[in-house]
Amino acid sequence: MADKLVFIGTIETPYARIEDCPRNIDSAGPLCRLRIEERFVPGLLGLEAGQSILILYWLGGGDRSVLRMNSRKSGDYAGVFALRTPNRPNPIGAAVLPIESIDESGVTVRGLDCISGTPLLDIKPAIQAERSIPQER
Amino acid sequence: MADKLVFIGTIETPYARIEDCPRNIDSAGPLCRLRIEERFVPGLLGLEAGQSILILYWLGGGDRSVLRMNSRKSGDYAGVFALRTPNRPNPIGAAVLPIESIDESGVTVRGLDCISGTPLLDIKPAIQAERSIPQER
Repeated sequence: MADKLVFIGTIETPYARIEDCPRNIDSAGPLCRLRIEERFVPGLLGLEAGQSILILYWLGGGDRSVLRMNSRKSGDYAGVFALRTPNRPNPIGAAVLPIESIDESGVTVRGLDCISGTPLLDIKPAIQAERSIPQER
Repeated sequence: MADKLVFIGTIETPYARIEDCPRNIDSAGPLCRLRIEERFVPGLLGLEAGQSILILYWLGGGDRSVLRMNSRKSGDYAGVFALRTPNRPNPIGAAVLPIESIDESGVTVRGLDCISGTPLLDIKPAIQAERSIPQER
């Protein structure tokens, strides 16, 4: 078993309920805030507006037992490791988005697909072609 | 606090010690095996050779308390969220690599940067420009 994770902050989005969330990440979507817990703020040093980041977050509410399901996009029956569904053994979501702005309490991006209050796990600088990618889940 | 994670398998690489690991992920590197636990194998349905996947894995051995350090690449002093270092609050590594081959016990890729025995957390289909990206950590 894995060690425990810590939440480094919280994601604020316009979406209060899972039903309200868009199906796709959209770098032209509404502003979303990665609010960083004060004790982790020093870890932001060096990130800059315009830079793209890989965001890892905690996808609560999914089904942890399902291993195959129908794709929402194609309708195909597939394994969860071949899909971006939040229904998967580990509830970790991933998105690559450019930084709109950054200040002492966190980072603003556009177009995340999760409910407001989603716990934030990690920010990594996106590398090469990871950059500025609209993504689907 | 987060729920617990489960390990869906183990990554087999040529590297027994952290000191042996390459600094960068390299899609032309040596073969590495994502050995999937039998109970999670049904989740692979639909993945195919040639397709690129986002691999999430458990980066043991890092320093969980450090928030700023010098970049191994540039030498710059930066926050861990601006670096790909395994020294970060949550030990989750990420790589995007194409599938070399796939069979009933797992997936083969090239050029992961972790030690053999690294726990595997997730496989997601890589999307758009995530595909076929050599990555650094």
